[in-house]
This record gives sequence, structure tokens and C-alpha cells, in this order.
Amino acid sequence: MAEVKKPVQKQIFLSGSSPDIKVPFKELTLTNGEKLLLSTVEGACPEAKEQPKLRAPWINARVGDKHKTQLDYAKAGIVTKEMEYAALRESMKEGPDAAFTPEMVREEIAKGHAVLPANCNHPECEPMVIGKKFSVKVNANIGASAVSSGFDEEIEKLRLSLKFGADTVMDLSAGVDNLQQIRSAILRASPVPIGTVPMYEALDRAHGDASQLTWEFFRDVVIDQAKQGVDYFTIHAGLTRELLPYAAQRMMGIVSRGGSIMASAMLRRDEENLAYAHFDELMEICREFDVALSLGDGLRPGALADACDKAQYGELENIGKLALRCREAGVQCFIEGPGHVPLDRVFENQDLEDKYCHEAPFYTLGPLVSDIAPGYDHITSAIGGSLIAWRGTAMLCYVTPSEHLALPTPEDVKVGLITYKLAAHAADLAKHLPGAQLRDDAMSRARAEFRWYDQFALSLDPEHAEQVWKSQMPDDCAHEPSFCSMCGPRFCPIRLNRKLKAAYNVK
Amino acid sequence: MAEVKKPVQKQIFLSGSSPDIKVPFKELTLTNGEKLLLSTVEGACPEAKEQPKLRAPWINARVGDKHKTQLDYAKAGIVTKEMEYAALRESMKEGPDAAFTPEMVREEIAKGHAVLPANCNHPECEPMVIGKKFSVKVNANIGASAVSSGFDEEIEKLRLSLKFGADTVMDLSAGVDNLQQIRSAILRASPVPIGTVPMYEALDRAHGDASQLTWEFFRDVVIDQAKQGVDYFTIHAGLTRELLPYAAQRMMGIVSRGGSIMASAMLRRDEENLAYAHFDELMEICREFDVALSLGDGLRPGALADACDKAQYGELENIGKLALRCREAGVQCFIEGPGHVPLDRVFENQDLEDKYCHEAPFYTLGPLVSDIAPGYDHITSAIGGSLIAWRGTAMLCYVTPSEHLALPTPEDVKVGLITYKLAAHAADLAKHLPGAQLRDDAMSRARAEFRWYDQFALSLDPEHAEQVWKSQMPDDCAHEPSFCSMCGPRFCPIRLNRKLKAAYNVK
Repeated sequence: MAEVKKPVQKQIFLSGSSPDIKVPFKELTLTNGEKLLLSTVEGACPEAKEQPKLRAPWINARVGDKHKTQLDYAKAGIVTKEMEYAALRESMKEGPDAAFTPEMVREEIAKGHAVLPANCNHPECEPMVIGKKFSVKVNANIGASAVSSGFDEEIEKLRLSLKFGADTVMDLSAGVDNLQQIRSAILRASPVPIGTVPMYEALDRAHGDASQLTWEFFRDVVIDQAKQGVDYFTIHAGLTRELLPYAAQRMMGIVSRGGSIMASAMLRRDEENLAYAHFDELMEICREFDVALSLGDGLRPGALADACDKAQYGELENIGKLALRCREAGVQCFIEGPGHVPLDRVFENQDLEDKYCHEAPFYTLGPLVSDIAPGYDHITSAIGGSLIAWRGTAMLCYVTPSEHLALPTPEDVKVGLITYKLAAHAADLAKHLPGAQLRDDAMSRARAEFRWYDQFALSLDPEHAEQVWKSQMPDDCAHEPSFCSMCGPRFCPIRLNRKLKAAYNVK
Repeated sequence: MAEVKKPVQKQIFLSGSSPDIKVPFKELTLTNGEKLLLSTVEGACPEAKEQPKLRAPWINARVGDKHKTQLDYAKAGIVTKEMEYAALRESMKEGPDAAFTPEMVREEIAKGHAVLPANCNHPECEPMVIGKKFSVKVNANIGASAVSSGFDEEIEKLRLSLKFGADTVMDLSAGVDNLQQIRSAILRASPVPIGTVPMYEALDRAHGDASQLTWEFFRDVVIDQAKQGVDYFTIHAGLTRELLPYAAQRMMGIVSRGGSIMASAMLRRDEENLAYAHFDELMEICREFDVALSLGDGLRPGALADACDKAQYGELENIGKLALRCREAGVQCFIEGPGHVPLDRVFENQDLEDKYCHEAPFYTLGPLVSDIAPGYDHITSAIGGSLIAWRGTAMLCYVTPSEHLALPTPEDVKVGLITYKLAAHAADLAKHLPGAQLRDDAMSRARAEFRWYDQFALSLDPEHAEQVWKSQMPDDCAHEPSFCSMCGPRFCPIRLNRKLKAAYNVK
């Protein structure tokens, strides 16, 4: 292919009310001069081993303040720098976007309808907001395990996650010696909020023996991780003892790893759920560091046969009560959701979450709308995910093609993320978020005008799109061809459209 | 891996009221003795170059009858062998399934709410029924083009389509010399209905010159293909001249190839749509051979920006009127649908189709719920596809990962089909079709009991699932391992469930 015009992409910053609020975006200039803002989660310094400590001055200025969390400030009517930053980030175009004002972010957080996860010990975190009024977010899971990977590999997976747009990342490392070091490296390198499941480290410290899992044991892990800078904790505090008999009746029982450890500890120690029993102390720790609580669904259904049963909804009701206590205590919280759910009951899950959990942000794993597609469960779950996000779910946890079969490879991480960015975007479009369709329209114009390189640049996975297209095109074209291999040069419907417009005098 | 027990699969036949009605199924015997019926479209003699002429005696017995089509018989209250066969095929378990009786098939066809495409010159066709009361069907497109492939390659693509479950196959061959020979080979080898777009061959015969496309020209192609045995024709008869100005206003104009050729002919010849103008003659030909008409949406939106506009819905209204004329004339027909449609307007498309087209079966391409995911449009479209099928769409046309970029490779055909079988199955589950969840439940039980090879056999893509699983498992296990690489041997939640069941005395 000879020289053709190509679009240009560069990093720009949108500025807030003060010079220290500068939000990175990618500015894409297409070959026809059209400009488009693309959001980015790669941070102000992509690829850097340590991100700049953007929030350090903001956090320092607050030392000694009675307000500890973003929720405290929001309830007091104070718009923080983080809120302004997060509002700007939701914009899809330059200039103030009336749809996403800092005040609106504050209000949603104050009501408990949104969270802004930002541990005071994670100053590298570029603030973002999770809530149904904002764009749908996507989480990627990474993490070392006894089977896989160490330090460098995890940092590589983090980078891959950011490249393909993970809005938050959960570090699920377990069963390795250097847990703390890995977590620390991830935190320093990450401009997005980092979540963990503290129960994994607790079990590690207890040498895998659930009968050793006391509250004191668990509390120490929670304190250590909070101090380290983790932005949100998944804690399965709603899985109370009275629900275990319902779980025992199920076809697949408990499929959540954290939930399973918690249940194991309850059975072995003949005690109530330790996080439930000590919820006030747990909230105190979280409030001190502004760690958001992601109230885990230890009883999420792992099979269609178990969907929407008494175990699942009983836990959701419990969680709803805990969410109210968090809101009262000034602790940010959101709610985890399923799991395996048939298509016709997806809406019901969001609606019950709204009801039981008082519109706290919902954060779901899929849901998967069938059980029979291992190897393709990124798709099974993206179907349910886009549907529930349209209905109001604020964040989707990605599922990769290896779900139910193996640990994800880097390629799986990529495919999982692209699939989920797509599902989230479909929901943003369906919710009519301001500006959501700008990129789609730019793509359609590029298609109508055979601007192939503009099409690639506008794609969720530019490299892949270009590669597929090139695989079947002659490589000696002097210009961008006004056809593709789907219909070949002779029958291109797109070309007819020029004649059609001419025939009806449409410019 | 040492010897482990593996499930066994064999072909069986379910028998109808007479010995010549024998419907092939796959019977899967799992390692725990459980048996499951899996539907198959590979025919009574999979892999054979020529399928047995199952319907030949049935067709011969009708010579001279005043009834020509399945619709004629249905309207006259007569249950044909084809209807009984198709009813049996919908069963998910052995023995008569009260949910899908031959009488119900007849009734749905008589009302025009279902079609049974079966050209009297395609005796190899194993009857199947397309309608909202039945399982959701999937179509795969194959076809030679100037860029690609010949004879053997097309037969290979047909076989691949059948292996992965295409309920019907469209041969979109165009721009090659041996069109008729390819189509004939496909018909003889195919146990599923074959569809075509006659306009492609018409343009070929006119040497690509749309100004030559007269009714006589088109009619001859239609007659030739009907005689050859094509089971359904996509014909863009609803794209009338008055709609062209609306199409000209669009961002992407016309993206349907057949629609574009038709529009081109209208513009060049300054005439009304030839299929619209000669619709009565067209129906006469179709009735003679019992070819079903798939009324094409030449104005399907090719961009979210064009979705649900006056061009699209105006054509749908036209088509609805043609559908009534078909019903009256005893010609089976169904309705093609979009295209690019945002998630929140998917239901509206099905609902309007029901209204304008009097519940004739809907057959959609996706819809795609975003424009920005080239390379992943099998997923973009499966999201919309599962949703619209849940709402009532009877058949989905697959979209492959190469959509918008290139002609599908064999791997694309496979991935496209698996994705669409999944979308269709998700809709069957959501519609609560009797037996739809049997396979999912068998999968969940196999998961709960670590019967890995049963899991693979129950998967939509068994070979792929097994390969992903094996890629990370040690290959020297003496038994099937009671864990997988996702959590590793130490923290398997599935294993806890045995203890949980024991603790609460659940068998």
C-alpha cells in the first residue's frame, strides 16, 4: 500500500477550575479534519512505573479534618477536587459539559447513588466516579497465583488492562509469597482504583486453614491493605449463617471464592460471618482511609438453575441493610451482583438491587445468560452485562473467554476487556448519555467515505481491525480503496450511495 | 492424563406416526449414566456428498394436487409429513412432546406465523419450522465470490456450517462463472433449507449493468433457481421508489447489497421496483415450487444514526402489505430485519414488525448495538440478536467477526455460528421453551461433580473447551482433577459445597 493519509492521535488535558485539575484524554484528528475526544484510563504518564502523585497535595491539605471520606464531604455539601476531576472525566467533548457537573457528582455520592473510590494512601489514583447516572465502567481482574506469574507479569497485565480501558482493576493475587510487594507495585503504577478481596490474603496467612480465620486475623489484613492504599475491598459480609442451608440446597452451591472461604470459616468455627458480626469496626477502618466497600455476593448463582433463589436474594437483602449502615457512617459502598441469570430475569436483578440496596451502585459479573458456552463466556456474559447496565448497573466486571476452564492469558484479558467495553458502550448509548454516540457517528461517516484508517482509529481494537482488513486486500493499492473484500470492487453498496445522494440533491 | 471415563455420543432417530418420519438426533450418554438429546442439523447421513432424498415419495404423492405449498395444506387443515417431521424436531426429549405437536405446526403455518421452507425440488431437505413459538433458528451465509473460493471450498463451508448448527444456509455466491453448479452441489449436499438472493445472479447475467435489469431478466433467474430447488428467496420488493429520497438523506444510505442493486436499477431505468411491480407473477412462481419469500430489508440501517428512520419503517410497512398478499395467495413468507439498532430500540423493532407484518416470522441480522467494534461485531450483534429473539424474532442471521472488514474465513464461520447458537439458546431459555434448560442443568451438575469430559461434551464447542482447559492442567493426572487452574487445587469453592451439603444433610 502506497502512502495514504492517516489520522493522528495525541494526549491532551482538559482543565478544571484550578491548575492542578488536568484530566488526560486522547484527541483523535481524523483525515478529514474532524476531531474527537476519546477517554483514557492510562493515566497522565502512560507506561510509567510510578504514576505521578496527583492527589498528594489534596490529601495533605485535609490532614486533621473531621471529614474523612468523599461521602463525608459530599454529605457536608463540599465539592472536592476529586469530584471535579471525576466530573470532567465523564465529558465526551471539550468545554464544560452541563450534563456532568461537579455538583452532580457530589449529589450522587451524597445520596449514596455513586462512589468515588480513592484511598488516601493511593495518591496516584486519577479520580473516577461509579454510578448509574455516569458512563458504565468496566473492571478487569488480574492477580498472581500459585499456578502462574510473578511480579513483572502482573505489572504487564495491569498495563494491558489499562491499554484496553479497564476503569478499575482488582488484584486477586493469592497463594504466593510476595503478595504485599506485588500489590504495592500495582498501586504505584496504577492511575485507576485498585480493589482486592482481603479474605484471600487472610486465608493465605492462616496457611489455608479456614478454622483459623478469626476476626482479629481478618482485621489485621484489612488494616494492612487499607494502609497500603487499596481503593476498594470486596467483603462478603452479607452471607449470614441463616442463608447457608439455602446454599446447600443448590445445584452449584457457592461459586464465589471469597464467599466459599467465608462459609468454610463459619462452618469450621461454628460462628456467624466475621465481617457481618464486626461490621462497625470494619467500617471504621474503611472510613479512616476512605476505602470503598464492595459488598460481595458470596451467594451469586453459578448456574441458571440457582438464579434468583432464596440464597441469592436473601443475601441481597442483607447487603442492602449493610449499605444503609455504610451510608450513615460515611463509608462509600457499592453492591456486587450475579452471576448466572437467564435473560428474562436480568432486569429483575437490577430492580431488586435498587429496592433492597437503596440505589447504591450495582457491580455485576455478567450476568451469564446460559451455562453451555465455556470458551465463549465473555459473550454469554456480555449479553447479560449490556442488558443489566442499560437498566442501571454502574460497573461490569469482565469475564474472559477462559472462564470456567482456566486462568486468563494476556490475549484473554484483551478480548475480555474489548468485549466489556463494547457491552458498557452499548448501555451508554441505550441510556442516551450525552455524547455517547459521537464516536459511532464518526465511524459511520468514515465508512460512508471509505476512510479506512479513520475507521481503524475509531475502533475499540484498532490494530486488530486493521489486520483483518489488510489480510484480504491487495497490498499494492496506490490509494485507499473504495471497496472492501466483503463485496469486492464490483458490487459495493456504499458506492451507490453517492449516486443516490446526487440523484436526490442531498449534500 | 491417564484413562478417564468419557461420555459417549451416537446418532439416534425419533420416529413419527409412520416409518418414513425419522428425525436424527445426537444422544449423549454422560459418564454418570445421564442421557440427553441434542438436536442436529447435519442430516441423516452427515458428511455424505448427497443427502438421501427423504421427501421424494412425499412430493411425488402430491403430483397434480391443487395444494402446492405447505401454507396451502395448512390452510386446508391438512398436516403434512413435513409438518410432523418439523414438530418432532423441536422436541428436546424422547417421546411425544405436548408442547410441539404437528397440529400446532400446521396452525402456526396456516396463520402465517411460521414458515416451513421446503422447495419441492429439494427432496434432501429435512423439514424444519421457523416461527416465534418454536426454538430460535440461526442462518449462516456462505458463497463464492470473485475474490474467493470455488466449488470444494463452498461445500466445505456448508459442512462447517452444519457442524456448528446452522439451521438454514444462504448461498450468496456471485461474480463467478459456475454459479449454478455450486448451487446444485450445495442443494444436493444440504439437509437444511437453502436461501439465495436472486438479484445477485441477475446482475451477474446483466454483466454488472443495473440499467439492463428488467423484470423479464429477473424473472428468468427466479424461475431457474426455483426449479433448481432453492428453498427461500430474499427479494427486496418493499423498497419502493418513494422511499429512495429518505435513504438519500441517511448517513450511511443503503448498505444492503441486494437493496442497493434494486435501487440502482430503479435509478438507472427510472422505474418502480421490479419485484414490487410484478409481485403477483413472483408469487405465482414461488407457489409453484413452494419457495418461501424472505422479504428483504433493502433499507436496513447500516449505522445507529440511521436506525428506525422513515426509510426503514416505511419499507417495513410496505413489506407488511406484501406479506398479507403472500398469505392470501398461499405463498409462505417471512420478513427480514435490521441491522444497526441501539439496545433501547430493539424491542420496538420486533413490536413494529408484529404490527405491520401481522406476526409473520421475523429474521434479523443482529441487530448490532454499536458501530465502533469492527473485528468484534459477532458480539455487538449477538447482544441485539438475543434480545430481539427473546422478544419474538424467529431466526437470526449470523454475523461473523470479519463483518465490515473482510470475507469470513472458515474460523470466522465457526465463531459466528457458535456465537449465534448461544444468542438463540439464550432467547429459548428466556422464552421458557419446554426442555430448553435441560442441557444447561446437565452442565451445572457436571460442573458440581468435576466431570470435566461431560462438561466438554455438553459445550457448544467441545473441542475448544477441552483445549483451553488442558492448556493449563498438568498432563500426568491419574484421575479427573477435582479443581481447575482458575483457583488452583487449594481454594476450590466447588469442593466446599460437598461439605456444605453434608453439614446440612442435603443429598
